[in-house]
Amino acid sequence: MVFGQRIKSLLLLFTLQYPFKSGGVLGFEATWESLDSRPLPNWYDEAKFGIFIHWGVFSVPSYKGEWFWQKWGRNGDAPSTNQATEEIKAFVNKTELPQFAYADYAHRFDATLYDPEHWAGVFAQSGAQYVVLTSKHHEGFCNWDSRQAVPTSWNWNSVEVGPKRDLVGELAHSVKKTMSNQTQKPLRFGLYHSLYEWFNPLYEHDKANKFQSQTFVKLKTMPELYDIVEKYQPEVIWSDGDWDAHSDYWDSKQFLAWYATNSTVAKTGVWNDRWGKDAMCHHGSFLTCQDRYLPDKINHHKWENALTITSQSWGYDRSLTLKSYYTAEYLIHALIQTVAYNGNMLLNVGPRADGTLDPIFEERLTEIGSWLSVNGDAIYGSRPWNHTQHEPASKVFYTVSQQNKVLYALFTEWPEDSKLQLKSPVPTESTKVHMLGLPSARKESIDLRWSHRGEASKAGMTIQLPALTPRNIPCQYAWILALTGIGNLGEEDVAEEESVVS
Amino acid sequence: MVFGQRIKSLLLLFTLQYPFKSGGVLGFEATWESLDSRPLPNWYDEAKFGIFIHWGVFSVPSYKGEWFWQKWGRNGDAPSTNQATEEIKAFVNKTELPQFAYADYAHRFDATLYDPEHWAGVFAQSGAQYVVLTSKHHEGFCNWDSRQAVPTSWNWNSVEVGPKRDLVGELAHSVKKTMSNQTQKPLRFGLYHSLYEWFNPLYEHDKANKFQSQTFVKLKTMPELYDIVEKYQPEVIWSDGDWDAHSDYWDSKQFLAWYATNSTVAKTGVWNDRWGKDAMCHHGSFLTCQDRYLPDKINHHKWENALTITSQSWGYDRSLTLKSYYTAEYLIHALIQTVAYNGNMLLNVGPRADGTLDPIFEERLTEIGSWLSVNGDAIYGSRPWNHTQHEPASKVFYTVSQQNKVLYALFTEWPEDSKLQLKSPVPTESTKVHMLGLPSARKESIDLRWSHRGEASKAGMTIQLPALTPRNIPCQYAWILALTGIGNLGEEDVAEEESVVS
Amino acid sequence: MVFGQRIKSLLLLFTLQYPFKSGGVLGFEATWESLDSRPLPNWYDEAKFGIFIHWGVFSVPSYKGEWFWQKWGRNGDAPSTNQATEEIKAFVNKTELPQFAYADYAHRFDATLYDPEHWAGVFAQSGAQYVVLTSKHHEGFCNWDSRQAVPTSWNWNSVEVGPKRDLVGELAHSVKKTMSNQTQKPLRFGLYHSLYEWFNPLYEHDKANKFQSQTFVKLKTMPELYDIVEKYQPEVIWSDGDWDAHSDYWDSKQFLAWYATNSTVAKTGVWNDRWGKDAMCHHGSFLTCQDRYLPDKINHHKWENALTITSQSWGYDRSLTLKSYYTAEYLIHALIQTVAYNGNMLLNVGPRADGTLDPIFEERLTEIGSWLSVNGDAIYGSRPWNHTQHEPASKVFYTVSQQNKVLYALFTEWPEDSKLQLKSPVPTESTKVHMLGLPSARKESIDLRWSHRGEASKAGMTIQLPALTPRNIPCQYAWILALTGIGNLGEEDVAEEESVVS
Amino acid sequence: MVFGQRIKSLLLLFTLQYPFKSGGVLGFEATWESLDSRPLPNWYDEAKFGIFIHWGVFSVPSYKGEWFWQKWGRNGDAPSTNQATEEIKAFVNKTELPQFAYADYAHRFDATLYDPEHWAGVFAQSGAQYVVLTSKHHEGFCNWDSRQAVPTSWNWNSVEVGPKRDLVGELAHSVKKTMSNQTQKPLRFGLYHSLYEWFNPLYEHDKANKFQSQTFVKLKTMPELYDIVEKYQPEVIWSDGDWDAHSDYWDSKQFLAWYATNSTVAKTGVWNDRWGKDAMCHHGSFLTCQDRYLPDKINHHKWENALTITSQSWGYDRSLTLKSYYTAEYLIHALIQTVAYNGNMLLNVGPRADGTLDPIFEERLTEIGSWLSVNGDAIYGSRPWNHTQHEPASKVFYTVSQQNKVLYALFTEWPEDSKLQLKSPVPTESTKVHMLGLPSARKESIDLRWSHRGEASKAGMTIQLPALTPRNIPCQYAWILALTGIGNLGEEDVAEEESVVS
Repeated sequence: MVFGQRIKSLLLLFTLQYPFKSGGVLGFEATWESLDSRPLPNWYDEAKFGIFIHWGVFSVPSYKGEWFWQKWGRNGDAPSTNQATEEIKAFVNKTELPQFAYADYAHRFDATLYDPEHWAGVFAQSGAQYVVLTSKHHEGFCNWDSRQAVPTSWNWNSVEVGPKRDLVGELAHSVKKTMSNQTQKPLRFGLYHSLYEWFNPLYEHDKANKFQSQTFVKLKTMPELYDIVEKYQPEVIWSDGDWDAHSDYWDSKQFLAWYATNSTVAKTGVWNDRWGKDAMCHHGSFLTCQDRYLPDKINHHKWENALTITSQSWGYDRSLTLKSYYTAEYLIHALIQTVAYNGNMLLNVGPRADGTLDPIFEERLTEIGSWLSVNGDAIYGSRPWNHTQHEPASKVFYTVSQQNKVLYALFTEWPEDSKLQLKSPVPTESTKVHMLGLPSARKESIDLRWSHRGEASKAGMTIQLPALTPRNIPCQYAWILALTGIGNLGEEDVAEEESVVS
Repeated sequence: MVFGQRIKSLLLLFTLQYPFKSGGVLGFEATWESLDSRPLPNWYDEAKFGIFIHWGVFSVPSYKGEWFWQKWGRNGDAPSTNQATEEIKAFVNKTELPQFAYADYAHRFDATLYDPEHWAGVFAQSGAQYVVLTSKHHEGFCNWDSRQAVPTSWNWNSVEVGPKRDLVGELAHSVKKTMSNQTQKPLRFGLYHSLYEWFNPLYEHDKANKFQSQTFVKLKTMPELYDIVEKYQPEVIWSDGDWDAHSDYWDSKQFLAWYATNSTVAKTGVWNDRWGKDAMCHHGSFLTCQDRYLPDKINHHKWENALTITSQSWGYDRSLTLKSYYTAEYLIHALIQTVAYNGNMLLNVGPRADGTLDPIFEERLTEIGSWLSVNGDAIYGSRPWNHTQHEPASKVFYTVSQQNKVLYALFTEWPEDSKLQLKSPVPTESTKVHMLGLPSARKESIDLRWSHRGEASKAGMTIQLPALTPRNIPCQYAWILALTGIGNLGEEDVAEEESVVS
Repeated sequence: MVFGQRIKSLLLLFTLQYPFKSGGVLGFEATWESLDSRPLPNWYDEAKFGIFIHWGVFSVPSYKGEWFWQKWGRNGDAPSTNQATEEIKAFVNKTELPQFAYADYAHRFDATLYDPEHWAGVFAQSGAQYVVLTSKHHEGFCNWDSRQAVPTSWNWNSVEVGPKRDLVGELAHSVKKTMSNQTQKPLRFGLYHSLYEWFNPLYEHDKANKFQSQTFVKLKTMPELYDIVEKYQPEVIWSDGDWDAHSDYWDSKQFLAWYATNSTVAKTGVWNDRWGKDAMCHHGSFLTCQDRYLPDKINHHKWENALTITSQSWGYDRSLTLKSYYTAEYLIHALIQTVAYNGNMLLNVGPRADGTLDPIFEERLTEIGSWLSVNGDAIYGSRPWNHTQHEPASKVFYTVSQQNKVLYALFTEWPEDSKLQLKSPVPTESTKVHMLGLPSARKESIDLRWSHRGEASKAGMTIQLPALTPRNIPCQYAWILALTGIGNLGEEDVAEEESVVS
Repeated sequence: MVFGQRIKSLLLLFTLQYPFKSGGVLGFEATWESLDSRPLPNWYDEAKFGIFIHWGVFSVPSYKGEWFWQKWGRNGDAPSTNQATEEIKAFVNKTELPQFAYADYAHRFDATLYDPEHWAGVFAQSGAQYVVLTSKHHEGFCNWDSRQAVPTSWNWNSVEVGPKRDLVGELAHSVKKTMSNQTQKPLRFGLYHSLYEWFNPLYEHDKANKFQSQTFVKLKTMPELYDIVEKYQPEVIWSDGDWDAHSDYWDSKQFLAWYATNSTVAKTGVWNDRWGKDAMCHHGSFLTCQDRYLPDKINHHKWENALTITSQSWGYDRSLTLKSYYTAEYLIHALIQTVAYNGNMLLNVGPRADGTLDPIFEERLTEIGSWLSVNGDAIYGSRPWNHTQHEPASKVFYTVSQQNKVLYALFTEWPEDSKLQLKSPVPTESTKVHMLGLPSARKESIDLRWSHRGEASKAGMTIQLPALTPRNIPCQYAWILALTGIGNLGEEDVAEEESVVS
C-alpha cells in the first residue's frame, strides 16, 4: 500500500484503485449494500456517550463560532447579507490591521497551555466512553502533520505553524491510555474530518465542474483521510462537509471498504453517515442525519445525537454568555431520550486556542459524570425497550439491561403525587422495583411498593416513589427505577405503544 | 477645594491641609476616635452581598493570578526562590520576546468586548446589592483617566493605553442605574484602591526612608484617591496595600474625614479597614482583617468576607481548572455563616482582558441568585441573633428579621431523621414554623410540626421537616425555617450559647 | 489553451502536451537545437543595462540575505555547520517567539510604502533599459496572485497574505509606461522565476525519486511560469534554481518553445540559460553561467553579468554597512568591461519589506545614470570590437557604434602622462578623435592630437588627452574617446590581440 | 550633593538651592554675565566638525520625522490643519490598530542590531571630533535609565522598555575610546537634551500657569539634566525645547553655573544657547540661533551650524528618497563656509530603530572624511581670517593656521581660466603658494606661480592653478591653497572688505 511510504507518490495516486482485499468474513466491497451489511461493533452501541471536540484556527478569534471565516468571506469579501457577516466584519475592523488575512490567526493558535492528559481526565470522569476530535474542519487547517500525505499543501497544519505540535497525536495518546471513571474501560479515540474545505481552489474547481472532476478528492481530502487512519487508528470516523456532492464524487465507499477491511481498526472502527448527499441519514455505522438529531421515537438504525454544550457554537466563542450554554438538566434529559431511542450522545466542547478548556465545560461534564456514577447501569450496555411512553405529567423512558434481566424506567419529572405510572411493563409475582442510587446500607428497604394499574396479568404498574430528603436523594434532574421479574421484558416484536393523552 | 481644577497644582499639593469642615452632625476629624464614632450607613448593613471585580493589566497574561508582576520581578528579575516565580519566568520565556517588559501587556488589555450593561445585569440577578471594582491594583495601572489628577504619571492608565476607555466610569454608570433582581433597589457602586504600588520608585523611596518621607503619598496615591471619589462617587472605598506603613504615613485619616464630611457621598459612603498597619482589623466602617475573613462566631463590629470564586486567584487565570473554582454550595454556606455572624460577603470575579466574563462566574452568580430568590427574606436587612449554634450533625445559623418579628433558622445540612434540633429558641403557644420557598398555593399546610426539646417554656425545639420531593423542594444546598412567636427573639444581651458537643 | 480558463483543470494538466504551433517563421521546437537557432531580439543586445530586483518574504528579516530560510532550515532545524546558520538561529531566538515559523514573516511583508511609479522613475534615470523582478524566489512565495494557476498552493502569495497586492502587476504597469531618461525608449519588463523551491514537499518528492517523477514541475512550477507570461507579458524570463536536474525534468524546452512561438511576447522575449544542468552556460538567448559572470574577453554568445549593489546579498540586508556596497566606480568599470565583451549588466537592488528603496541604491543608480548621460553613445546599441586590449598602466576597452562609423575607446584609468596608448586601431588621414562629454560650446577645439605609435598605416595610436579642470571634466571614473576614420573598424574576423606586457 | 544618592529625595529637591562653589578661577555665578565671562575651551573651537544623532521612539514609525507624535496629536487628536497631520493620521490608520497609542512604538524600539563601536568608527573616519546624542527628545523618552533621577516617571526610558539597554552609556563608552582618523585625538562626547516635553502634563500645567510655577522644571527636566551630566560627563550640553519660556523658569543659569564650576567636566564642557527665550542666540559657549544657522559673514561669538544629512528630518525617515539627502558637495561647501566664519558644523544622522545606520549616512560621512584627510590642515585648529571675499565667479573663503604662519584660501568653484583671484592677501617676496593634497613625491614642483593683481606691496594676488588630471586631482568639490609669507596675516583689526561686484 502506497501510503506506508514516507513521501507518497502523488502521480501514482491518480490512478490509485484504493486497494483492499474483499471477500471473506471481514471483506467489504465499495458499495453501500456491502458496507451496510457490516454489523455494528458492540463497543460503540454500548458506549452511549462520547465527547466531541472542535478545535482549530477558528478558536483564535473565538467569536461567532467555527464558521467565522466562511461568514467573513475568503478575504473579508462575503456579501453583507446577514447579521453575522456584518458583526464579524466589524469585529475584524476593530481588532485587526487592514492587511489582515484569516491565515494570520494560525500564528496565534499557540496551544501554550494544551495538556491532553488533563483533557482526557476530564472526559474520563464525565462518563464518556469515546472522544472525537476535529482533525480538520472546513477551514482546511490540519491538526496533525499532513505535509507528507498531501505534499501540495503545507504551512496550513498545526505542526508547521501555530502550535507546532501534533495536536491529534498527543490527544490520541492520552485518550487511549485513560480509563473511564464509570466503566473502567479505556476510552476510544475517533476523528472528525471535513471532506470539503470552504476556500480550497481545488474544491472550487470541482464544484464549478459540477463534480465531474475529482481533483480535490484525489489530491487532497482522501489522502488526508487515509493518513489519519494509518497514523492514529481512530475507531470513529466522523465525516462531514459532504453535502454538496454524491458519494461517488467523494470516493467514500472505497475508503470505507478499505477502512472496514484492511485498516488496523477494521474490526472495531465505526463511521457516521456524512459521505455524500446520497448517504446522509441512510448509510453509516450510525446515522447523524442533522446536527442535534434527536428523534422522538426509537430509530432501529443506530444513530448519534451530536450536540454542543454551547448551544450556538461548536468552536469556542468567548463572547457567549451563560444563557448560551445548555444546563446539566437539559443535557441529562437529552442523554436519556437519546439512549432510550437507540442513539449515542456526542457532546461537544470547544477548547480555547491556548489549549485550555473553559471551566464551564468541565462543570457540565462533571455534572453529567456525577449523574452517571449513580445511574450508569441503566445506560452503558443497555438496549432500548420496544415500548415507549410519553406521559403528560411525567416523562418516562425505558432501557433494558444487557442480559435482558432488568427493565429500567427513567423519568425526568417527579410526579406530583410521587406515584409513577408505567403503562407497558407486565408485572409478575416476582416483580421487584428499586431506585438506582439509594444507599446500599438500607438494602432491605429499597424495594418500592407497586400495584397493578388495571387488571393483574395485564400491562401497567403504579409505583410508589420513595420519600427522599436532600440528604439521601441519589441524584438530580432524572431518576431511574430498576424493575426485575417483568413479564414482557424480552419482547422485541411488539409494536410501539401509543402515547397516553390525558 | 483644589481638586476641582482641571489641572491640579502639584506644588500646592505639598502643603495641602486636606481640607474639610469639621464639627456639626456630619463633621468628622482626622482621628480614629472621631471616624470610629460614625454610625454605619444602613444600606451597607442591609446589603449583605456584594460583587468584587479584579481587572487590570494582570488580566492579560491571566496566569498565576494578579500578583504575576510581583512574582516575576520588576524586570523579570525576582529571585527564583519559589515555584510561582519559576513558573512565571518559564511562561514569559515561552510566550514573549526577550525584550519583553510587563508594560507591554497593557497594550494588549483591549477590552474589545467589554459590555458593562451585561456585567451589571449579571450582578443584579445574583442578588448582590453592590459592586466594587479595582480602580488601581498594586501594579499601579489606573482603570480611569488619572492623568490630570497625577500629572507626574501618565501612559499607565486605561484611557491612554490599552482599552483607551474609562473602565471605571462606564461600569459606575451601568451599575448605578441597575436594579437588584432580589430587592428592587438600585445597585451601589464602590471602588477598590491600592495604596501602595509594587514598583513605584516614589514608594520605594519612601520605604527606603522608613516612611519618614511621604513623597509617594502626596504625589501619587492620595491625589488619585481623591480623584476617584470626586469623579465616581463611590459608596464603598475598599482600600488595600497599606500593610507596610502606619496610617500617619498614608494620610488615611485626613482622607476619610474628608470623605465622611465633605464628599458628595459623605452620608452613604463606607470604607474598609486597610488604611495602615494600625488600622487593619481595628478601624473602618467594616473590617476585613484578612482575605477570606470568616470568623466562627459573631463579630459585633460590622465586617466583610472578601473571597473569590476562583479559590486561587483574584484576577482571571485561564490556566485554572474546575477544581480551583468554589462550588455554589460552598459559596452559599459561606454567605449564610457570614450573614449570621454580622458580615457581608464580597464575592470576587476576574474578568478577561477582552472584557468578557467567563461563564463559570455567571453560573455561580446565577446559582446564588436562584437561592436568594427563595431565601432573601432571611438575608437582606436581617440582623444576627445573639444565639449561635454549632451542631455536630446539622449546621444551624440564625438571623432575625428587620422588625424583630421572625427568627430564621438556616441549616446547611439536612438531618438524617428530618428532625431539626434547635437549642436556643424559646417557643411560645403562638409559635409557628414554616420553610421559605414552599409553594404558596398550599399555604394552609406549610406550618411545620414542632415539639419542645425539653421542658416547655425553656429553650429548645424539635422541628419535623417537611417531606419534599425533587418536584417541590424550594432550593438546594441550604434551607431556612421562619419561626414566629418566639419568646426570646428580642434578646440582645444574652451571652452566646456554647456549642453542643455530642 | 487551457490556461485561459479561470480555474485550470489540474487533471488535464497532467497529460498536457504543452501546446504550440511549430513550423513557420516563428515556430520553434522543444529542442535546444531549434531554440538555439532563434536570433536574439535586437532590443536586448542594444539595452546593455538592466535592473534586477529581489523582493520577497526574505525582505522582512532583511538579515543575512535572501537565503535566510534555507540557512535557518525549514523549521529552524538546519545543522549548525556554518556561521551563517548559527548567526541566523541566534537572530531568530533574539527577535522571535519560540513558536516562530518562517511563514510568520509573510504577514509582516506589508509593502505599505510601495510606490512602483517611484521605482520606475529611479530605474529610468539610471540609464537602465529593462527591469527584472523576482516573481518567486526559492522560498516559493509568489509576488502575484498565483492561486488560480496553481490551486493546490494558496496563502503563500502576495495577494492573499502580507501586502495583499499584486506586486508584479503593479510594477509591470509602471515600468512599461516609463521612458528611459537616456534613450527615450520605454523600459522593458522581465521576470525572474525560480524553478525549484527549497522546502516544497513536491520537489523533495521528485528529488528523492532522482527526478524520475515530475510532480512538482507539472503541478507547481510550470503552471506558475505559464501564468506569469500570460498575465504580465515579460520580455525577459530569468529562470533560476534549475541546477539539481536536467532540462528534461523541468519541461523547460517545451515552455521555451511555447514562449518563443505562441506567447504574446514571442517576437521580443528573451531568456537566460538556467533551465537545467545541461543548459546552464550553454543554451539561452543569453548566458549567465554564474552569478557576477564577467569574462575577461569577448564571449560571442550574448551573455549577462548579474550582480548586486550590495556585494553580499541580493535581498535587502539591513545589517550591512557601507563597505558591503559596491562603489559607483566599481560598477561603472564593470559595466564597461561587460559591454565591451558582449554582455549586458543586470544590476540588482533589494527593496525593503515596506516597499521603500534604501537611498544608497538610488545613489548608486544616479551615479551610473549621470555617467551614462555623458557616455551613452558608446554603450547603447554598440557592439564589441574584435580587438581587445589589456594595458598594464591604463585599462582600455572598445565598442563600435551601430553603423560601424565610430570606434569608442573606453579607459578606466587616466594615464600618468595623459597620453593614451591604443594598440589596435589603424588610423587613416581622416582619423579624428574627441572625448565624449566635452562641452559642445567649444566644438571646434575638441579634436584631440594623436600620433602614430609606430609605422604609419600600421595599427597603433598615441593620443594626447585634453587638459581638464574640475570645472570642465565631463565625468568621473572612466572616460571615452570617439575615433572616426579608423581603417580597421569593420573587421570582424581578426583574431583577438594579445595583451601588452610591459 | 544630593544627586549622588541612589534614590534622590524629591521633597528635598523642591527647596534645592542648586549648590555650587562660586568664586575663584573656575567659580561661576548663576548669571549670564558671569557665565558669559567663561572662555571657550580650546578643544571645541579647534574641533570644527561634530556628529549629531537623533534617536528615539520616533525612529520606530520613521515617517515624517521626529515630530511625528506632535503632528499626530497626543492621542491622534491633532486638528487636521496641515498636510503632515493628515498624512500621519492616514499612515497610523493604515499600519496600526484602532487602539494604538504612541507609547506602543516604544515596545518596538528594539535596537537589536545596535553596535556603538561601529557607530564610533564611522564617526571617527568622517573627520568629526565630537558626537552629540539625543538623551531625550521632545517626546520625553529617555535613552538612559532615568528612573532613579526622576522617580515620578518610569516605563518611558530605554532601559525599562524597548531596547532595555543604556543607549547613552554604551555610546559614551565607545565614542570616548575612539580616535579620530584625521587628528588622532579621542572623540569627545556630548548630549542633546530637550527641556520641554510636548505632552508632559507637568509642563502643560506650568504653561497654563504662564510659567509662574516650576513644577515640571524641578520635578522632571532639571533632575534629568543633572543626572546625565553626573552619569556620562558630556563635554557638550546641547539644550533644546526652551523657546516657550524664560531662562528663569528653566533654572538654566543655576545648572550652567554648577556645570561650569562643580561638575567633573567643569573645565572642558561647553553648552549651546537654547536655555530660554532670553538666551537663544545671545548666551552660550556657542550660539546656534536656529536650525541650519549659517551666517554669510564672520560672527565673532563662536557658533554652530547644526544641520542634518536628510534635509527634511532629524530622526530617521524611511519614506524619504535620495533627493531629500544633501550631497557631499553641499555638505563640504557648508563646512567650509561654517569654519571660515567662525562656526562648527554639527551634522546629524538619524539611526534606525534597530540600531543600524542607513548606508547613505555612512556614504556621506565617508565622502567628507575623505575630503578632510586631504584638507584637514586648513580646518582643524584653524581660525577665521578677518578678511572675507565673495567672488562672483569663484567662491573663496579663508582660514589661518594655528601659529599664524599659513593663510588658507578655500575655493568651492574652479575658475574657468584656472586663475584664482585673491583680493585681500598682501604678498611679499617670500610668499609661496601650494595646493593641499598634491602628491609629495613631486614636492619641488608644487609651488604655484602667482602674480600681483595690481600694485606690488598692495593686497591682491592672481594664482595660476595647477593643471590636474583625474589621476592626480587631490579631492573633489573644493580645493585649498596654502599661502605662506603673507604680509597681513596677523591683522585682526581690519574692517571686512567689501565683496567684489563685477
